[in-house]
Amino acid sequence: MKKYVAEFIGTAVLVIFGCGTAMLVGCDASSGSGYLLTALAFGFSIVAEAYCIGNISGCHINPAVSLGVLLSGRMSVKDFWGYIIAQVLGAICGSFLLMGIFTLGNVPDQTGSFGANGLAGVNGSAAAGLLVELVLTFVFVLTILGVTSKKAGHGSFGGLVIGLTLTFVHILGIGLTGTSVNPARSIGPALVAAVNGNYAAASVLWIFIIAPLLGGAAAAVCYRCLAGKDSE
Amino acid sequence: MKKYVAEFIGTAVLVIFGCGTAMLVGCDASSGSGYLLTALAFGFSIVAEAYCIGNISGCHINPAVSLGVLLSGRMSVKDFWGYIIAQVLGAICGSFLLMGIFTLGNVPDQTGSFGANGLAGVNGSAAAGLLVELVLTFVFVLTILGVTSKKAGHGSFGGLVIGLTLTFVHILGIGLTGTSVNPARSIGPALVAAVNGNYAAASVLWIFIIAPLLGGAAAAVCYRCLAGKDSE
Amino acid sequence: MKKYVAEFIGTAVLVIFGCGTAMLVGCDASSGSGYLLTALAFGFSIVAEAYCIGNISGCHINPAVSLGVLLSGRMSVKDFWGYIIAQVLGAICGSFLLMGIFTLGNVPDQTGSFGANGLAGVNGSAAAGLLVELVLTFVFVLTILGVTSKKAGHGSFGGLVIGLTLTFVHILGIGLTGTSVNPARSIGPALVAAVNGNYAAASVLWIFIIAPLLGGAAAAVCYRCLAGKDSE
Amino acid sequence: MKKYVAEFIGTAVLVIFGCGTAMLVGCDASSGSGYLLTALAFGFSIVAEAYCIGNISGCHINPAVSLGVLLSGRMSVKDFWGYIIAQVLGAICGSFLLMGIFTLGNVPDQTGSFGANGLAGVNGSAAAGLLVELVLTFVFVLTILGVTSKKAGHGSFGGLVIGLTLTFVHILGIGLTGTSVNPARSIGPALVAAVNGNYAAASVLWIFIIAPLLGGAAAAVCYRCLAGKDSE
Repeated sequence: MKKYVAEFIGTAVLVIFGCGTAMLVGCDASSGSGYLLTALAFGFSIVAEAYCIGNISGCHINPAVSLGVLLSGRMSVKDFWGYIIAQVLGAICGSFLLMGIFTLGNVPDQTGSFGANGLAGVNGSAAAGLLVELVLTFVFVLTILGVTSKKAGHGSFGGLVIGLTLTFVHILGIGLTGTSVNPARSIGPALVAAVNGNYAAASVLWIFIIAPLLGGAAAAVCYRCLAGKDSE
Repeated sequence: MKKYVAEFIGTAVLVIFGCGTAMLVGCDASSGSGYLLTALAFGFSIVAEAYCIGNISGCHINPAVSLGVLLSGRMSVKDFWGYIIAQVLGAICGSFLLMGIFTLGNVPDQTGSFGANGLAGVNGSAAAGLLVELVLTFVFVLTILGVTSKKAGHGSFGGLVIGLTLTFVHILGIGLTGTSVNPARSIGPALVAAVNGNYAAASVLWIFIIAPLLGGAAAAVCYRCLAGKDSE
Repeated sequence: MKKYVAEFIGTAVLVIFGCGTAMLVGCDASSGSGYLLTALAFGFSIVAEAYCIGNISGCHINPAVSLGVLLSGRMSVKDFWGYIIAQVLGAICGSFLLMGIFTLGNVPDQTGSFGANGLAGVNGSAAAGLLVELVLTFVFVLTILGVTSKKAGHGSFGGLVIGLTLTFVHILGIGLTGTSVNPARSIGPALVAAVNGNYAAASVLWIFIIAPLLGGAAAAVCYRCLAGKDSE
Repeated sequence: MKKYVAEFIGTAVLVIFGCGTAMLVGCDASSGSGYLLTALAFGFSIVAEAYCIGNISGCHINPAVSLGVLLSGRMSVKDFWGYIIAQVLGAICGSFLLMGIFTLGNVPDQTGSFGANGLAGVNGSAAAGLLVELVLTFVFVLTILGVTSKKAGHGSFGGLVIGLTLTFVHILGIGLTGTSVNPARSIGPALVAAVNGNYAAASVLWIFIIAPLLGGAAAAVCYRCLAGKDSE
C-alpha cells in the first residue's frame, strides 16, 4: 500500500510543479525563460521524487514507465495496475490542487488549459503528435531501463539522469505537443480543463495515452534485444 | 559551537546570493533570464554549502529543515535551537551585507524590498500564500529526508539533489510568493526592508514563518509513515 | 552488431533532439532561450544515451570521439569503421525523421537548413570555422579521454560530465559555427538540406569533417603526453 | 612539468570559453540568455577540465585557489609559483586566441574589452568591487576546500560541485564586477584589451588581483578553524 501512496504523491508533485510552472510562466521560447523553466520543472520533479519516494516505490510516476518496467519483467502485474491507478489519481488531484491555488490567488493560467497536452504546436496533426510522443517516450523509457540496469551499476545516478532526460524530452517536445510521455500527466489537466468547460484537451487525450504506452513498450523490447535479458 | 558558526555562514550565503540575485537581475519570467537565475542562485547556494559546511553542521541553513530533522529524531532539541538562532542571525547579516553592497555600488534593487517574500504574485491572498508555501516546503523537506536517509545510501548525492530541489521549488514559487520555504530567509530581508522604511514584507512575514514550519513538519510525519522509522 | 545498432540509435537521437530543438526554437541568444535550449538539448542527449546505449557500445555517437578512442588504443580498427558507418547512417536517418515530423506538423524550421552547421556566425571565414571547431573538439575529446580514464576512476560520472561538456562547447560554438565537433552530426542535416535543394551546408561540410577529426586526434596525442599511456 | 602544462591548458580553456561566451552573446540579464550562458560557460569549464587535467594537476586554474590550497598545506611553495605562472600565461594565451578568432571571423565583441572585469556594474566604486570579489572568492574557495577534503570523502563529486559553484558566484557577480574570483582570468583580457588600446580594465586590475587572493586566503583560514586541520 505504501508504494501506491508514494506513486500517488510523486505523480501529484510532477503535475503540480510541471503543469503549474507552465500555467504560471508560459512556454514561449522566443522571449523570456518560460519554455526552459517548464522543461526544468518537469525534469527536476523526477530528481526530487526519485531520491525520496524512489526509496519506497521506485518512483515511476508514469504509466508508460511502469509498462516498460513490467515488460522488462521487473514488476508484477498486480503492482502494475496498482501503480497505474495511483498515478492517475495523483495526477488528477495535482491538477485540482493547481485549480485551487490559481483560483485562490487569482493567478492567470498562461496555458489556458491547466497545462494540458495538445496539438497546437503541430497544427492539429494527430499523426505528427503520435510520432513525436512515440519518439520522446521511446528515448525516455530506454534511458530509464539502461540507467537502472543492475548490471550496469549506475546506482544513485539513476534519479539525476532520468530527471535530466525528462527535461531533455521536454526541450524538444514542449513546442510540438507540450510533451506528455506520460498518460497520467495528460489525464489530470485534461479532466480538470473539461470540468471547467474546456474540452479541447480531452478530445485529443487518446493520443497522449496510446503513443506513450507504445513508445514505452517499444523501448522495453529494444532494450532487451540490445542489452540481453541479463542486463536488465 | 563550530556547527552554529557553519549554519550562520551558510544561511548568510543563501541570502546574499539568492536574494542578491533577485535584487540584481529581477524575477521577470516573460523577458530575460532573471527568474531562472534567481531559482538557480538559491539552489546552487545549497550545492556550494552542502559540500562545505555540510561536513560540519549538515548544512540545514533553514529552520523548516531543522524542524523536519528534529521530528525525524536525527538531531537534539538543544542543537535545534542553536541552529535556528544561528540561521536567523546569518540571514539578517546576509541582508545587511546586501544593503551595504548595493548602497556602496549604487545598484538599483529590482525587487524593491531586498528580495523579501510577499503576496503580490497571488494578489494578496494569504490563503493562497499559505497553501503554496505549505506545498513547496512539504516537497522540499520530503526530498531532504529521503535523500539523506542512511538506509537508502545516496551518499554524496545529497547536496546536489537538495540543491536542485530548492531550484525546483523556486521555479514554481517565485512567481507566486517569491518562494520562502525557509523562515530565516524571509526574516532577513523583511527586517532590513523595515529598517529602510518598507513594512510590506514584515506585515506578511507570519505566513513565511508558519507555513514552512508546518510543511516541514508534515513532511517529517509523511516520510516516517511511508518509509518507516528505520529508513530514516 | 548490437553495438553498431546502439551507435546508430544514439547518433539518431543526438540529431533528432539537438538539431530538432534548433529547428523548433531557433538559436537567438539576444531574446528568448533558444540558444541555451539548443545547447542543453545536445548535451543532455549524451546524458540520456550514455547511461543507456553506453552500457552496450560506450556511446561515442561521434566519429571524432571514436578517432580519439582509437588513437588512445582503446578500440579496434574494425570496430572504428563499424562505429563510423553506424553513426553517419544514424545521423542521416535522424535528419530524415526530423524532416518527416516538421513536414507532417507543418512546423517552420527556424534554422532554414535542418540545423546544419555553417559559417554565418563567422561571416563566411573558413579559417575561423576551422580554428573554432578544432578548439571545441580538442576540449571536448580531451575531457572524454580524461573522465573515462580507468586510472582516474570517475566511474558513472562519465556520462554526466561528457554531456555537460558538450553543452559547454555548444555555448561558445553555436553563435560561431553552430558547433559540430562531430562529422556525423554535420553530415545528416547537410544531406537532407541538399535533398531539399539547399546546398549551402553541403558546400562547407568539409570543414565540419576535417576540423573535428583533427581536434579529436590532437586531444588523443595531448592526453597521452600529459597523462601517460597507463593513465588511459 | 606536466602539471604546469595542464594548468596552462586549463586556464586557457577557462578564458577562451568563459570570456569568449561573454564576448559572443553579451551579459544582459534583462533580455535573452547571455547572462546565464556566460555563467554556465565559466562553471562548465571547471566541470570539463576537472575530470581531465584534474587527473594531472588538480585543476586549480586560478591563483586564488592555489593560494587557498597552499595555505591549507596541500601543495608545496615551489609548485605554487609554477602553477601561478602557468595559469597567468594560459589566460593570456587564451585571450590572444579569442582575439584571433573574433578578428578572423569579424565577430563583434559584445563586452568591448575581451570579457575583462570592471566596475561598471557598481558604478565605479572600488570599495564595492573589492567587497563583492572578496565575498565571491571566499564562498568559492571555501566550497573547494570542503568538497575536496579527504575526510569528507566526496570523491568524484568535486569537479561537478566546484563547477556549479563557479556558475553560482557568476550568477550574482556578473552584473556587479563581471566576476573575477581569479586573478589570472582578469589579467588575460585586461592585457589583450590594453594591447588593443583599451586601458580601462588594466586601470582597475589591481582590484581583481588583490580581492580574490584575500578572499581565498580568508577561506583557507576559516575552513581550518571550522573543520580542523585533519579535515582538510
